[in-house]
Amino acid sequence: MTTSTSPPDADRDMIVARATPPGAGGLAVIRLSGRGCRQTALALFRSSRPNFTDLRPYRLHHGHLHTPDGRRIDEVLAAFMPGPGSYTGEDTVEISCHGGPATAAAIVAACIAKGARPAGPGEFTLRAFLNGRMDLSQAQAVAELIAAATPVQADMALARLDGAMGRLARELRQGLEALRAGVCLAVDFPEEDVECLSREEFAARAADVSDRIRKLLEANRRARPFREGASVVLFGRVNAGKSRLFNALLGRERAIVTGVPGTTRDYLEETLDLSGMPVRLTDTAGLRETGDEAEAVGRDRGEKRVKAAELALFVVDGAHPLADGDDDARELALARTLGPARVMAVANKADLPPGDPDPAAVLADMGFETIRVSARTGAGLDALAAAMEHRLGAGYAPAVDDVVPNQREAAALSQALDELADLSRDIDSGVPYDLLGVRLETACAALSDITGEMTPDAVLASIFETFCIGK
Amino acid sequence: MTTSTSPPDADRDMIVARATPPGAGGLAVIRLSGRGCRQTALALFRSSRPNFTDLRPYRLHHGHLHTPDGRRIDEVLAAFMPGPGSYTGEDTVEISCHGGPATAAAIVAACIAKGARPAGPGEFTLRAFLNGRMDLSQAQAVAELIAAATPVQADMALARLDGAMGRLARELRQGLEALRAGVCLAVDFPEEDVECLSREEFAARAADVSDRIRKLLEANRRARPFREGASVVLFGRVNAGKSRLFNALLGRERAIVTGVPGTTRDYLEETLDLSGMPVRLTDTAGLRETGDEAEAVGRDRGEKRVKAAELALFVVDGAHPLADGDDDARELALARTLGPARVMAVANKADLPPGDPDPAAVLADMGFETIRVSARTGAGLDALAAAMEHRLGAGYAPAVDDVVPNQREAAALSQALDELADLSRDIDSGVPYDLLGVRLETACAALSDITGEMTPDAVLASIFETFCIGK
Repeated sequence: MTTSTSPPDADRDMIVARATPPGAGGLAVIRLSGRGCRQTALALFRSSRPNFTDLRPYRLHHGHLHTPDGRRIDEVLAAFMPGPGSYTGEDTVEISCHGGPATAAAIVAACIAKGARPAGPGEFTLRAFLNGRMDLSQAQAVAELIAAATPVQADMALARLDGAMGRLARELRQGLEALRAGVCLAVDFPEEDVECLSREEFAARAADVSDRIRKLLEANRRARPFREGASVVLFGRVNAGKSRLFNALLGRERAIVTGVPGTTRDYLEETLDLSGMPVRLTDTAGLRETGDEAEAVGRDRGEKRVKAAELALFVVDGAHPLADGDDDARELALARTLGPARVMAVANKADLPPGDPDPAAVLADMGFETIRVSARTGAGLDALAAAMEHRLGAGYAPAVDDVVPNQREAAALSQALDELADLSRDIDSGVPYDLLGVRLETACAALSDITGEMTPDAVLASIFETFCIGK
Repeated sequence: MTTSTSPPDADRDMIVARATPPGAGGLAVIRLSGRGCRQTALALFRSSRPNFTDLRPYRLHHGHLHTPDGRRIDEVLAAFMPGPGSYTGEDTVEISCHGGPATAAAIVAACIAKGARPAGPGEFTLRAFLNGRMDLSQAQAVAELIAAATPVQADMALARLDGAMGRLARELRQGLEALRAGVCLAVDFPEEDVECLSREEFAARAADVSDRIRKLLEANRRARPFREGASVVLFGRVNAGKSRLFNALLGRERAIVTGVPGTTRDYLEETLDLSGMPVRLTDTAGLRETGDEAEAVGRDRGEKRVKAAELALFVVDGAHPLADGDDDARELALARTLGPARVMAVANKADLPPGDPDPAAVLADMGFETIRVSARTGAGLDALAAAMEHRLGAGYAPAVDDVVPNQREAAALSQALDELADLSRDIDSGVPYDLLGVRLETACAALSDITGEMTPDAVLASIFETFCIGK
């Protein structure tokens, strides 16, 4: 068990990693933290000032970084941030070099040769947590801020970065602790004439805490598509103009550049910012019937993607009648299986005369919300985007300063809420005060998971494992 | 025309860009340079120290960055680097924030709202050049260091980063200028008894400069595959185990992570570090004959890639005879068109009994270097890698401190060398001294292109356009 109020451990070993994203850029920053990092940096750094003696705190020092055997790696700026005021709470050195992957790798290697070890994912932030620089909610907010692909996501993380969620959790816990104190008094000093909460007062106060938890859980639920994004998949025949529609939607909305290329032989994927909601837009390979084994595999994967999406866009050629063979039949069957709640029909090629019978009318008759667009001219794309936004729940974006619990925090809040619901039933059924205390204790423990004060090391490890290396 | 010795222009406008690579990481750095950047940063920065008054030079200041209307964007470290000692030679502020794309974008937007404009590609380095902080060779070395995908590439850039190439170019020019002085004396004061170079002495000195230029050009030529990388393309039938071989080679060698995803529906591409040489390994889609239009396009593109590669690996199923139909015929025809100099045959599935007739023997008889491998067991992969290295010229890696001209510099050196060759012919044919002076002048001008002292703005612009934004 670890507590976030444990004192900084001056003896933690030295870790190193590139802190900036991988790839080429103007600058890269290598971060070194732990015992002896100032000496390690000094051993590798040659200042460009003749009178240089030491890395002074919070100064930028210009010079060159060398390998341990004296080979020059790069021109750098080095900064020393002493503990406990640094990000990690322990001595830290940041080395800013030219942003090539080879250079950053060589500097990391030089630090390792001088005794550092490669930092694990999130290990700098784990140390900040272990050294009491932040609670677990803040640590996760750091990771979420980094991963934020939209301004709404960044705002949600930022609102928790200064510890607002931890403060709320502590307030809720204090409310329950006060109730526990009331219970304990009644149990410990039954003969004495001490202040003792009436059942009504007790129930009212517990209900008040429950209400506050419910509001937080509601905020979490509403923010879900903004936090996790929504998945929209295009499917339909090759000649329906699916790829053109995919590109037209990309051209209209701002594409979010993700670190992970979503492009494979089977499908194309891009992420759009649709009114603050990150939407993964996937263009599946055509679902054509074919004897080719590789294509059949691709087709099955495509179907799986369509079925897993929050919203599937069934793209048809609006200028030709539907179902002129097996091809449309397969796609149409998939649309009907998923049903109008999960599928929107898009009748493309609205710049041409409609087919006879008009596929848009046919699909609308089947109950599908149907939008006419022309990917070629752009007509109808605004209406399509608006319909997608409406379906996916955009418009419920959290306000800037709203404290929105993340999934882990919501799970802890739910657990506390369940316990309080049981408590409420216990009170109604006349369970003695002292048994209520156990429920309150369990609810408090669940709330303390939010700040991580009593979180077991194994759970911490699994949380920080999901961070990127260098944070 | 611009010269690198022009004085810093204190009135250059304020530019801003993220200096670290795009994507998510622990940290991102936003760089702001030019007139008023300290004031702009001050307007957006709120220090965490109550007694904060100003951004002091070369100090790290902790605080929060806000939008112009006071909304908090992120917790940051801000550093002010005054001109002329900064990277750009003018006032610069660097803001280090959490490394999410949304956060960095918000900070850049805030700076733009306060009067900065987005920096163009390489514009920070262009300013360093214009402000006399570095010559053109050094500026390109910065870009090359950033783009370096292998340690050899990084070393080549680093060797030029402190101006070694510029110093060499100036030495060569001084040699030619001294000859010009000798020529001028003879022309201006023909009646006087001044020291005048003999034709022999003149020719010998010019030949000496030519020799030194030739050595530099030879270094450039030998380093070519290390600088530009080599392209190796796998082709062959789908069932030859091409994809498995591709993955086996990737597994054996260190894959270089590039910023540009090379994965499309038509081919897979990864870059390997083959003994210091970056090798782009491409797995083309099978070149199958097919009636499908999209596949035919893919097949044609695949053939183009095969033809454009330095080395093509013709992968066949070694366990079955060749040419059992049209499929192999098409691939074999391509191999024969390219010929044994550009194609190596790889007989895969060496873990199975060879076909009868053995395709490896058949291909070897046709004159192709043929390697037996098993992508499944890994047998033969070492021999294949060694053969690839040998073919591509690995083993000629430049030494750490070798000054290797880049392509632009090599072009300038070639031009100077051509001029000196003409000069040598002129001397042999008895052309008068004063005409030789014109040739020397042209050669000197070519050499001065290396440092960019007289390079026209349009040429500079085209050079810096290729830099990444933020450098």
